[in-house]
Amino acid sequence: MATYCFGVDVGGTTVKLGLFRVDGELLDKWEIPTVTADGGKQILPDVADSILKKMEERGIEREDVVGVGIGAPGPIDSEGTVYKAVNLGWGIFSLKKELQTLLNIPVEAGNDANVAALGEMWKGGGQGYGNVIMITLGTGVGGGIIVEGKMVAGSTGAGGEIGHMHVNDEETIPCNCGNYGCLEQYVSATGISCMAKEKLAASDKSSVLRGTEVTAKDVWDAVKEGDALALEVAEEFGRILGKAAASIATVVNPEIFVIGGGVSKAGSILIDYIQKYYQKYAFTGCRGALFALAKLGNDAGIYGSAKLVLE
Amino acid sequence: MATYCFGVDVGGTTVKLGLFRVDGELLDKWEIPTVTADGGKQILPDVADSILKKMEERGIEREDVVGVGIGAPGPIDSEGTVYKAVNLGWGIFSLKKELQTLLNIPVEAGNDANVAALGEMWKGGGQGYGNVIMITLGTGVGGGIIVEGKMVAGSTGAGGEIGHMHVNDEETIPCNCGNYGCLEQYVSATGISCMAKEKLAASDKSSVLRGTEVTAKDVWDAVKEGDALALEVAEEFGRILGKAAASIATVVNPEIFVIGGGVSKAGSILIDYIQKYYQKYAFTGCRGALFALAKLGNDAGIYGSAKLVLE
Repeated sequence: MATYCFGVDVGGTTVKLGLFRVDGELLDKWEIPTVTADGGKQILPDVADSILKKMEERGIEREDVVGVGIGAPGPIDSEGTVYKAVNLGWGIFSLKKELQTLLNIPVEAGNDANVAALGEMWKGGGQGYGNVIMITLGTGVGGGIIVEGKMVAGSTGAGGEIGHMHVNDEETIPCNCGNYGCLEQYVSATGISCMAKEKLAASDKSSVLRGTEVTAKDVWDAVKEGDALALEVAEEFGRILGKAAASIATVVNPEIFVIGGGVSKAGSILIDYIQKYYQKYAFTGCRGALFALAKLGNDAGIYGSAKLVLE
Repeated sequence: MATYCFGVDVGGTTVKLGLFRVDGELLDKWEIPTVTADGGKQILPDVADSILKKMEERGIEREDVVGVGIGAPGPIDSEGTVYKAVNLGWGIFSLKKELQTLLNIPVEAGNDANVAALGEMWKGGGQGYGNVIMITLGTGVGGGIIVEGKMVAGSTGAGGEIGHMHVNDEETIPCNCGNYGCLEQYVSATGISCMAKEKLAASDKSSVLRGTEVTAKDVWDAVKEGDALALEVAEEFGRILGKAAASIATVVNPEIFVIGGGVSKAGSILIDYIQKYYQKYAFTGCRGALFALAKLGNDAGIYGSAKLVLE
């Protein structure tokens, strides 16, 4: 009986790989560099080589492996077709089929943020729940939607692209996506830093942030110290993200929101601000939703992609 | 082999019932009154009697019936538990199990708006698609979310409650749900009428709407005549609903939006206004979504509930 599976998380600079038992125990994890040169042609052969080498090393046969799951940064639909992954140099092709051919092992593929949500549902902050929204607050804002235990890839792989929900009509600076006023312009690490810098520039108020780099971490540290200007930023962060979470809830009515990404290192204070406004804006029937911090950190991707082949 | 199924749509005044072949052909439809007295106790026994009578009449045996699907106005989770249906007098109980016991036939249950979406996906405006959002513009605004052919009930039956998405921070009048600034306060029949009345009161502009009842129908008729004030209302309608549809799309990335309910009788002009703003606010990866009018009218509920037992 097949007792192993692999999870692969392709990033812009490294590929993370994990060997799992099907019950979710992580037996081994390692990384290889992502070779993006030449349209990212070498990425999948490198991944396949690395997995086959690991199998040889551990004496694992093909029939012992349920499958290999792979997550990558780009829109990927439920059939495993990727529609351009700009950071990797990839165009449109079946990620699932191509890796399957290289490995001769069943493959499933998904968008990295969606897959991370699946990982957090399986063994992280959303464990025990089947209806989970993961919100990843990093340089940008990613999202993953899990409905009754299954990842919502969306019809063109754009399911969970909540970082590009329109939340501000007044914005004059474009988002990376080309639109104006996207969620990630305010609540990502970059967004939090920008909001704080704007507030600093707009007043003479004293603040512990003056003279710092004003990173998102600086802002949350200042919030914890009770800095008045940082507290204003935190309220604004909570208002914008709490309201967006309430909008998401009217669509899929989740049991739990899991907050991850670099910004989530600020800890539970983040959740206090989000919850405050979530409760204000959420539909009555959705107010029972829980909020938790992600637990798997950078491993969410390998957990989630491994889980993909167990569904 | 079982070749029949029933669809039941419980409304506040009448219960609609339909007998279907499993391929979706509607063989018979009829109505019975909804007896809401005494906590709605009589509703399910009445439904069961009516179905059993129809089976006798047509010589259909229990083994010929795949199941009976039932939709009702209230939050109903994927297990078929209803959490209070105020209009029917119902509290919290397993709608699925109770009707199943009365009929001795498998039963599935869902919220009426969600079930209508499933019906439109099966045999209506969304036919041929598996990722469908239905937006029902009636007295209120209902919604139904279909992901890969399956209805998203949500963890407490509030999946698709998009009528209560917060869209306006400035609102001072409460929505029926108790919140302020919900989508249905603007784009429902009531909302459209209110927006028009406010515009009429705020200016002396001539308008064909002056002297009418200013119903939603009056407004769309005036839009078709090119009435300047009505055109302003239509733009506002399109801006609010197009933006909300764009928000929904970042969550589940549908193939198609199906617009139903009484307001949708205005026809394709409605879609022109929604699309205009959807294209403005939608994330690039979601812009390919189609918009169509619902086709099944009041029969969407019986189609969808019948489809529930075929999944």
